[in-house]
Amino acid sequence: MEPSQTRAQFITLTTDFGLQDAYVASLKGVIFSLAPEVRIIDISHAIPPQGIVEGGFTLACAFPHFPPGTIHILVVDPGVGSTRPLLLARTENHYFLAPDNGALGLVFETEPPRELFRITAARYFRPRVSATFQGRDILAPVAAQLARGTAASCFGDPVTEFVPSPLPAPTRLSDGRLRLEVITADRFGNLVLNLREPKYRELTGGSATQRFALEIGGRSLLRLLETYAQGSEGEPFALFNSSGYLEVAVRGGSAAAALRCAAGSAATLTLS
Amino acid sequence: MEPSQTRAQFITLTTDFGLQDAYVASLKGVIFSLAPEVRIIDISHAIPPQGIVEGGFTLACAFPHFPPGTIHILVVDPGVGSTRPLLLARTENHYFLAPDNGALGLVFETEPPRELFRITAARYFRPRVSATFQGRDILAPVAAQLARGTAASCFGDPVTEFVPSPLPAPTRLSDGRLRLEVITADRFGNLVLNLREPKYRELTGGSATQRFALEIGGRSLLRLLETYAQGSEGEPFALFNSSGYLEVAVRGGSAAAALRCAAGSAATLTLS
Amino acid sequence: MEPSQTRAQFITLTTDFGLQDAYVASLKGVIFSLAPEVRIIDISHAIPPQGIVEGGFTLACAFPHFPPGTIHILVVDPGVGSTRPLLLARTENHYFLAPDNGALGLVFETEPPRELFRITAARYFRPRVSATFQGRDILAPVAAQLARGTAASCFGDPVTEFVPSPLPAPTRLSDGRLRLEVITADRFGNLVLNLREPKYRELTGGSATQRFALEIGGRSLLRLLETYAQGSEGEPFALFNSSGYLEVAVRGGSAAAALRCAAGSAATLTLS
Repeated sequence: MEPSQTRAQFITLTTDFGLQDAYVASLKGVIFSLAPEVRIIDISHAIPPQGIVEGGFTLACAFPHFPPGTIHILVVDPGVGSTRPLLLARTENHYFLAPDNGALGLVFETEPPRELFRITAARYFRPRVSATFQGRDILAPVAAQLARGTAASCFGDPVTEFVPSPLPAPTRLSDGRLRLEVITADRFGNLVLNLREPKYRELTGGSATQRFALEIGGRSLLRLLETYAQGSEGEPFALFNSSGYLEVAVRGGSAAAALRCAAGSAATLTLS
Repeated sequence: MEPSQTRAQFITLTTDFGLQDAYVASLKGVIFSLAPEVRIIDISHAIPPQGIVEGGFTLACAFPHFPPGTIHILVVDPGVGSTRPLLLARTENHYFLAPDNGALGLVFETEPPRELFRITAARYFRPRVSATFQGRDILAPVAAQLARGTAASCFGDPVTEFVPSPLPAPTRLSDGRLRLEVITADRFGNLVLNLREPKYRELTGGSATQRFALEIGGRSLLRLLETYAQGSEGEPFALFNSSGYLEVAVRGGSAAAALRCAAGSAATLTLS
Repeated sequence: MEPSQTRAQFITLTTDFGLQDAYVASLKGVIFSLAPEVRIIDISHAIPPQGIVEGGFTLACAFPHFPPGTIHILVVDPGVGSTRPLLLARTENHYFLAPDNGALGLVFETEPPRELFRITAARYFRPRVSATFQGRDILAPVAAQLARGTAASCFGDPVTEFVPSPLPAPTRLSDGRLRLEVITADRFGNLVLNLREPKYRELTGGSATQRFALEIGGRSLLRLLETYAQGSEGEPFALFNSSGYLEVAVRGGSAAAALRCAAGSAATLTLS
């Protein structure tokens, strides 16, 4: 049984729309007009404008905590109005609607798509589709009708390809070190890197005695801790964060400021 | 039948309160204490402090997407505690509560008021009304009781006058050009002007071959496009946005920054 | 009967997580997965990072407006991962969950705790508790299960002590004047001081003819007004705000900017 056969109660939103303008509320109004009983949860609307990697990362961190059958709308869409397709994906437990621009790549690393559809069935769209706001005019009504029980396959033809995430995977350098990249700096200035704990355990063979050295922002960090409270005041250190990503933090401060790093900054991990 | 005879499920909020302080949540708490079953939707709380035009504009863009019978609270209120009245308006499909300071002007351009009441019935207010937070102490309990089915006419006497929007209409200059004004710069730096598409079609007589020239920020823009993706990187252009307003945008950038314009900036449209 | 025996419908959130990242949504997802019927209301997620006083103040202003039985989660937690306990408090009308770090002090001034528990019952936690996100992994599931009717006493042993608020009470100086402190500057730049109206009435013996003089930011303010609209443009003045705190404001401007004051700034009140 696909999850859509029971009514989904929750629709989440992840966008770069900001909270200042009417964009988010307009999209919600369209959903509630079609499916007044759903619950809409904001994941973030403060994704940097056109930040495909940050949008996908934020949704990838949040979605696993939502109930099975939740529908997730992700709109970070530099190509709105161009010919890039809109996708509807079904994974083991969730639905995802987004432009096919790589933003869903990090989500699919956690739950790969079991079915993918290209959204084309205009009878489910708003009567007049604006060339500049397909989130409101296509994704919102499709999500609402999916929530009310329309089967995913009604919204378009199945596809098998999708644009992968533009975020590079960790790269092994010729000297054996691992080249990493900062995905995002969070609200506290913590720097999140593109290395998850299971991959790290695999690389170290699970050896806890392995020496750890992370070069980032001109510093070499030798401490891999468990909690922020273990850090020394003002001293950058690494830990695996609550979503399982390698993170550089400063207790009571901002690692982004201390190391002058941001999304896209490079780091190098030595395991020896 | 007036919409209030069935329970309204949705109350929206548009304010300049920001999301930092307890103001918004206090207002919601008052509503939920009286009408626990309603759904409260934030339209925006990032209206610039005392930005009457921006507040009305944001609500005007969002409200048409909400279900019939929705109650919209708009609080941008430089005159709180003075003698300016509080209004309750019923339009064809919606209810609006706001100080009578011009903020509802842009809303009424879309749906004119069918009934207007001056809110005076203190028995529906909170027992002690703060002189500085009438949104929480008057508008919130009135909206909650309206949502529960109290007739609009119970909250005060009918009135016929309201303060018009302080935003000037497009003005015809002596040389035939049209003087416009920037209503707001959105999150992406797009500049929204006070000219809607139907008015533009009327002025051009629907002629698609009309030459378009918009002077703004010392530049003359000659391109009226359909989508952001059609723009050239870094080059300002005009389009009618998803709410039907003339907008100046820069693909992948900020028109506000490129043209050094903001709310209140002037523009001149030549149709020849 | 303790309020938890009926289902609480509302859970509020007050944090320093910001709205940019996945933190808030992850916490909500955990709650909805366990208690899909609850309503979650954001009080603020823009508490300054690790701002214990500001977090407690914001919740103290908002919570009295919520329905009886509401559960309030407060997470401003510089000590996450250290040994500081997590508290569950029951007051006359509400429940509170927070780290025991003083943040609840201002809340308890309004409604003192009737029962206090140290949260230790790991069977109610998420199966794997992250060392850096106990809000998501402990407080969220405990709140959800409290909302579904689990008795407060199930979550841990009763305690009687809690860390008091780090905010000093108003202090009487040797010359009889009262030393006050700015708790926070709100969105409008209004400066909120640590003196509530009942305490002020007590100090002045209710005498309305008392001379008022407040020194702050190098200025001496002699006007205690009732509304913002009574102020003179650009001129700082004092009033008791809508939450009953002494506040310094500038009509149509920012007192914080005009007086160069912020959270922690000192003020001196002369009553003579």
